[in-house]
Amino acid sequence: MTEKNFSAKSAADSEWMSRALSMARRASALATPNPTVGCVIVQGSRVVGEGFHEYDKLDHAEIVALKEAGGEAQGATAYVTLEPCSHQGRTPPCVDVLIAAGIRRVVAATADPNPVVNGNGLAKLRSAGIEVAVGVRQTEARDLNDGFARHIRSGLPFVTLKSAMSLDGRIAPAPAKVARTAPFYITSAESLETVQQMRHDSDAVITGINTALEDNPLLTDRTRLPRRRPLLRVVLDSALRLRLDSKLVRSVKDDVLVFCTTPIPERQRALEALGIRVERIDASIGNPRVSLKRAIERLGEMKMTRVMIEAGSQINNSAFATQAVDKLTLFYAPILLGARGIPFSSGTEQLAPVMLRTAIDQSGPDFRLDAYLRDPWQQEEDVHRTH
Amino acid sequence: MTEKNFSAKSAADSEWMSRALSMARRASALATPNPTVGCVIVQGSRVVGEGFHEYDKLDHAEIVALKEAGGEAQGATAYVTLEPCSHQGRTPPCVDVLIAAGIRRVVAATADPNPVVNGNGLAKLRSAGIEVAVGVRQTEARDLNDGFARHIRSGLPFVTLKSAMSLDGRIAPAPAKVARTAPFYITSAESLETVQQMRHDSDAVITGINTALEDNPLLTDRTRLPRRRPLLRVVLDSALRLRLDSKLVRSVKDDVLVFCTTPIPERQRALEALGIRVERIDASIGNPRVSLKRAIERLGEMKMTRVMIEAGSQINNSAFATQAVDKLTLFYAPILLGARGIPFSSGTEQLAPVMLRTAIDQSGPDFRLDAYLRDPWQQEEDVHRTH
Repeated sequence: MTEKNFSAKSAADSEWMSRALSMARRASALATPNPTVGCVIVQGSRVVGEGFHEYDKLDHAEIVALKEAGGEAQGATAYVTLEPCSHQGRTPPCVDVLIAAGIRRVVAATADPNPVVNGNGLAKLRSAGIEVAVGVRQTEARDLNDGFARHIRSGLPFVTLKSAMSLDGRIAPAPAKVARTAPFYITSAESLETVQQMRHDSDAVITGINTALEDNPLLTDRTRLPRRRPLLRVVLDSALRLRLDSKLVRSVKDDVLVFCTTPIPERQRALEALGIRVERIDASIGNPRVSLKRAIERLGEMKMTRVMIEAGSQINNSAFATQAVDKLTLFYAPILLGARGIPFSSGTEQLAPVMLRTAIDQSGPDFRLDAYLRDPWQQEEDVHRTH
Repeated sequence: MTEKNFSAKSAADSEWMSRALSMARRASALATPNPTVGCVIVQGSRVVGEGFHEYDKLDHAEIVALKEAGGEAQGATAYVTLEPCSHQGRTPPCVDVLIAAGIRRVVAATADPNPVVNGNGLAKLRSAGIEVAVGVRQTEARDLNDGFARHIRSGLPFVTLKSAMSLDGRIAPAPAKVARTAPFYITSAESLETVQQMRHDSDAVITGINTALEDNPLLTDRTRLPRRRPLLRVVLDSALRLRLDSKLVRSVKDDVLVFCTTPIPERQRALEALGIRVERIDASIGNPRVSLKRAIERLGEMKMTRVMIEAGSQINNSAFATQAVDKLTLFYAPILLGARGIPFSSGTEQLAPVMLRTAIDQSGPDFRLDAYLRDPWQQEEDVHRTH
């Protein structure tokens, strides 16, 4: 192939993969705890089938697309945002179906982080004589499945700490003399909308009892986009102080989980009677508060792959101190809340989290920082693995 | 002219103006308190003369460029980053010289903010039959002369508040038990280099006695770029506590000014003996500290057109509280200094400065916010002025 043809081909690959990524994005909150995957099958320059995986419908993205393509899959190229699986799970291996359908070429955005697949799917396709390319729009594809990658490899969810603050690093004004009746929003409508999308892309959101008492937040996913299981709203509430008339309790639909450390049977019964799930969990070392680390582990056991922390100074501090944060998303609003405002973190130690990859952007009048503190696709064991 | 020709012409105009702007940038610290201006004279598609204004060499940019062009200026186009002057100042009006040289067309990036010119230069060129275009790369051209515009219209310098802080809004770690021997740099080498360029583009830098005592900064322009007068290093030091062995004092070269409020003749004499200029000035309302507002006014009287504030929590607070800030440049470093770190502002009031124009950018591992809080080119009196 000449170099010109090669670059034309890779430009086309990138375009088709972009479409497959859009498909995958539609799977957000529908595929969990499986990965979000999109597939587009192209015959010449015509899409003959496309689809994405929904956990409840079983079929993987490739199968959805192949079913639509029917006989037209013969000799076609399949663009998949994740390496096709090679193992028997709830469904037969996708690679066998791709081979049987006569697919000529498979372009995958990234290999599967699942240790039982990782490269095997692609190898099997190659040995069946299928042309395979991997790594097209890899970063975008990996970002879509940071939760899946983290969970499949460590059993823990991918944790994003989100906070909105003033330019001077305050997450709220000085404590009000009179309790507020509604949350105080520092940031703009645009930023709040982004947070809604982040919640939609998450399985659970963690807050602390202080935030619950002071801000009385709802913490729901209000995007109106479909999701297969409700966003689990988790409150770290060691002594079960959550108010029965709080918005969280009043809006419960089998989606509120309270972690406590102290058994207070009467409070627990009252919450449970209203439909709140209460679990006793280890306290932090040296204090009676719920261990954030243990809470995150529990959520991993519950197959939560992506968890957001939307909390206050104390939990923010614990999150950094225990290295629980995989990704940081900070919104800075163009205001100054002054020296009595509530600090981002209650910690007193100086911390320099290593930021692997950062992006900054405007968000309406605010600005936003995204930073990966850990790459769930590039874990330590991988660094030394030879391919 | 056809539309195609028109857009080709405006693309060329933009390119040539870009070159004139580069010229103007070379005038930074050489033109003050006059505006930085660059001029390029183009005959067909060939540069026949170019130059920039240096205050000490008298000639305006147009004259420098015309002298180089000589007879080739006949029928040429002059690109100027600022409207040519129409009044007799230290030199004759440039418009007369442009007309006499036979310039056919003048492209100006922006009108002159000087009330005695503002449009008159362009009008005079037009009435001499010269084709005039104005507004090419206007924003860049105006930003270069925010100091000149502010000063010529208000008598005050353009004030940029610069601060470097952690993600959680702390400008320094908690006070050290043992005094530091060198400033603690939060931000990266890249950001420090940007600050050096900002200092080079400034006439004066203001700090407070607390910063002087705690950080022992030098506050010099270390870019090695030429400047016609040294960067004036200003310390707000109400009770003359500046140490005689501080870096500031030891490096004095007729470029350190101390504003105090309390007469302490002995201290004053000691500082003056070392070459420090000491001025008594009004205190703030309600406290004995130097009035930042009054200090800024004094610097305006001394023909300082661009002043940077590089100080601590208290001066940052005064700057916002008294609306002294025209532009904000904040560097955020990827660290957390924690709840005991020194806050950006000691103020306790909630402030929402209106940001007219913001830009965010990476600065090595840090990120940077620039925000105009006041547009020196668009002052209140202009808003209602009809052109």
